[in-house]
Amino acid sequence: MTADFDRTYMARALQLAEKGRGKTSPNPLVGAVIVKSSEIISEGYHKAVGKDHAEIMALKNAQESVAGSTLYVNLEPCCHTGRTGPCTEAIIQNKIKKVVIGIKDPNKLVNGKGIRQLKKAGIEVVINVLINESFYINDSYIFYHLNKRPFVTLKLAQTLDGKIATLSHESKYLSSKKSLTYVHKLRADVDAVVIGSQTAKYDNPQLTVRLSKGQNPYCIILSRSLNFSDSLNLIKNNADYKTIIASTEKSLKTFSQKKNNVITWTLKSQRDKIDLHDFLDKAKQFNISSILCEGGSKLASSFITQKLVDKIVLVTVPKIMGKGIDSFTSFKTDKLSDMVGFNKHYTFKSGEDTIFVGYPKWGKA
Amino acid sequence: MTADFDRTYMARALQLAEKGRGKTSPNPLVGAVIVKSSEIISEGYHKAVGKDHAEIMALKNAQESVAGSTLYVNLEPCCHTGRTGPCTEAIIQNKIKKVVIGIKDPNKLVNGKGIRQLKKAGIEVVINVLINESFYINDSYIFYHLNKRPFVTLKLAQTLDGKIATLSHESKYLSSKKSLTYVHKLRADVDAVVIGSQTAKYDNPQLTVRLSKGQNPYCIILSRSLNFSDSLNLIKNNADYKTIIASTEKSLKTFSQKKNNVITWTLKSQRDKIDLHDFLDKAKQFNISSILCEGGSKLASSFITQKLVDKIVLVTVPKIMGKGIDSFTSFKTDKLSDMVGFNKHYTFKSGEDTIFVGYPKWGKA
Repeated sequence: MTADFDRTYMARALQLAEKGRGKTSPNPLVGAVIVKSSEIISEGYHKAVGKDHAEIMALKNAQESVAGSTLYVNLEPCCHTGRTGPCTEAIIQNKIKKVVIGIKDPNKLVNGKGIRQLKKAGIEVVINVLINESFYINDSYIFYHLNKRPFVTLKLAQTLDGKIATLSHESKYLSSKKSLTYVHKLRADVDAVVIGSQTAKYDNPQLTVRLSKGQNPYCIILSRSLNFSDSLNLIKNNADYKTIIASTEKSLKTFSQKKNNVITWTLKSQRDKIDLHDFLDKAKQFNISSILCEGGSKLASSFITQKLVDKIVLVTVPKIMGKGIDSFTSFKTDKLSDMVGFNKHYTFKSGEDTIFVGYPKWGKA
Repeated sequence: MTADFDRTYMARALQLAEKGRGKTSPNPLVGAVIVKSSEIISEGYHKAVGKDHAEIMALKNAQESVAGSTLYVNLEPCCHTGRTGPCTEAIIQNKIKKVVIGIKDPNKLVNGKGIRQLKKAGIEVVINVLINESFYINDSYIFYHLNKRPFVTLKLAQTLDGKIATLSHESKYLSSKKSLTYVHKLRADVDAVVIGSQTAKYDNPQLTVRLSKGQNPYCIILSRSLNFSDSLNLIKNNADYKTIIASTEKSLKTFSQKKNNVITWTLKSQRDKIDLHDFLDKAKQFNISSILCEGGSKLASSFITQKLVDKIVLVTVPKIMGKGIDSFTSFKTDKLSDMVGFNKHYTFKSGEDTIFVGYPKWGKA
């Protein structure tokens, strides 16, 4: 029974945490619920980077004494002073009796230290309640701190038969308004969006967050050839200096980088191909912890081939195109057992479209 | 309120109708509910061809007098004597007061005559209650009687990126056991299954109903080239004489048709391609009212290109293949507006897979 109660309150904490989506990076999404005598007496969530942590907001919001109560929080409380003070201290001072935690915070500044501090102060601590949900809500944050490289989400909008554009590169707008809104939310949720030169050239996207709330990510054109014109939206409308051109030294020499304060990254290349590991290293140095790859097919295939995709989002529209540009044009598997599978995946409706979200499990190849 | 009640009882009639699936062809799926003083007093459905119609079973099942009650039935009651007597007569004799009908039966032997007979006898008749559901449950039956040609369902099992096999034609078994069971149900539901020569050659399928109940359909190999060996399962194991080879006169000359009593259909061809209209005409002459096309890609593309697909079932497995054989390899659209869309479509989970079912709306091409 207690476990059931714990899951119920943790689910509420996760629901609150969601409210901060798009506004907390590099911080995680965190919600907190304070329960006394089986009743919720206060709630809080991390609204945005620099603002109070969820636990602090919940403590401040309480209209009665929280002494002796239980705190539910989807991520281990922090024990360090960053932009705000340590949460563990506030929890101890407020005489919270028990803390129920979704998942341990792998950030090296926390990583179990928060739990130890609470226990040392005599507080009962329960961990791993709704652990999967607590991971998925902060997948990129947790991945980044565990693996020390940016979390890569690959998003493609395709037809039922796996085509992202006609042979003449027509693809605007394949998906529904509702799905576009979802994609804008994905953008608000990452530090950077990356596209290849074909997408830059034929789609000429803005890659901004317009249909949702949240800040614009960095926009990276990752291309060996830089085969596009300077009048691209990303170059022309770069008022916030958020466009990055990532290419080889040779290609960048001929590229007028001063134009509109475009940032350039010089990347290593191997056999005429840009080294994606070097790209992710550069991104990390730039404090980018999460990247959304929005295609096209060649870039998506490169990331997939090198097993550098951590989450795949496929927006499928109910249309059949027949011949067209494949979603993964240059990714190759020889046997069924070589295919990319998924550790966890789910599908949901988005207007007329269906959105698939999955965490890849790599095949034998 | 009455309309709400009507929909509730009609939904129950549809649920009962489903019980006959796979066993009623060439008859439709029909369920009947008898309601008196807001209570269901009897139910029935059409169990199998040759058995009682749903209305008769419901009348026979009643434990009390049905006089003055309301009968709910998803298809217009018949008024002709076929394998069984006319339902309208039984309804009138049993003093049913009101008949609520899902959809008019387009079979020329009924087609409004049933409704007229009931009205003439002073019975109140309401039609078009849950009309969409009543159409979809008998889509092939209604289509066949309206359009006088077999209803064609196209089914393909594909990866998320729209591939049905590896480049070396490996495709067994892409989809989950649950999806295979669903496909066997589709087979039990049609008069014939058709495949192309590539599928015959590389998959060597049995096309029988094994994972579900129901009778085996005719198995048609539709091929101009007949480029496969005589040791195919469909030719070797043809104990029930249900294999049909449909090809051109020229190709059939070299084909040893006496082998295992395989039936042959000689079809017209145009510019080296078999005339699919002629194929459907032959099927109709053979009393085939519904056909399931199970690929491969070339045959699927031919049906799609000629707009001869009435329902598409796509089983999508959560895998990414990259390069492989496309679901619709030779279907071509030049613009997004040329794509095949859908009038109605829905998606459901099938184990790990997702199954899309849609009724095509043809593009501008």
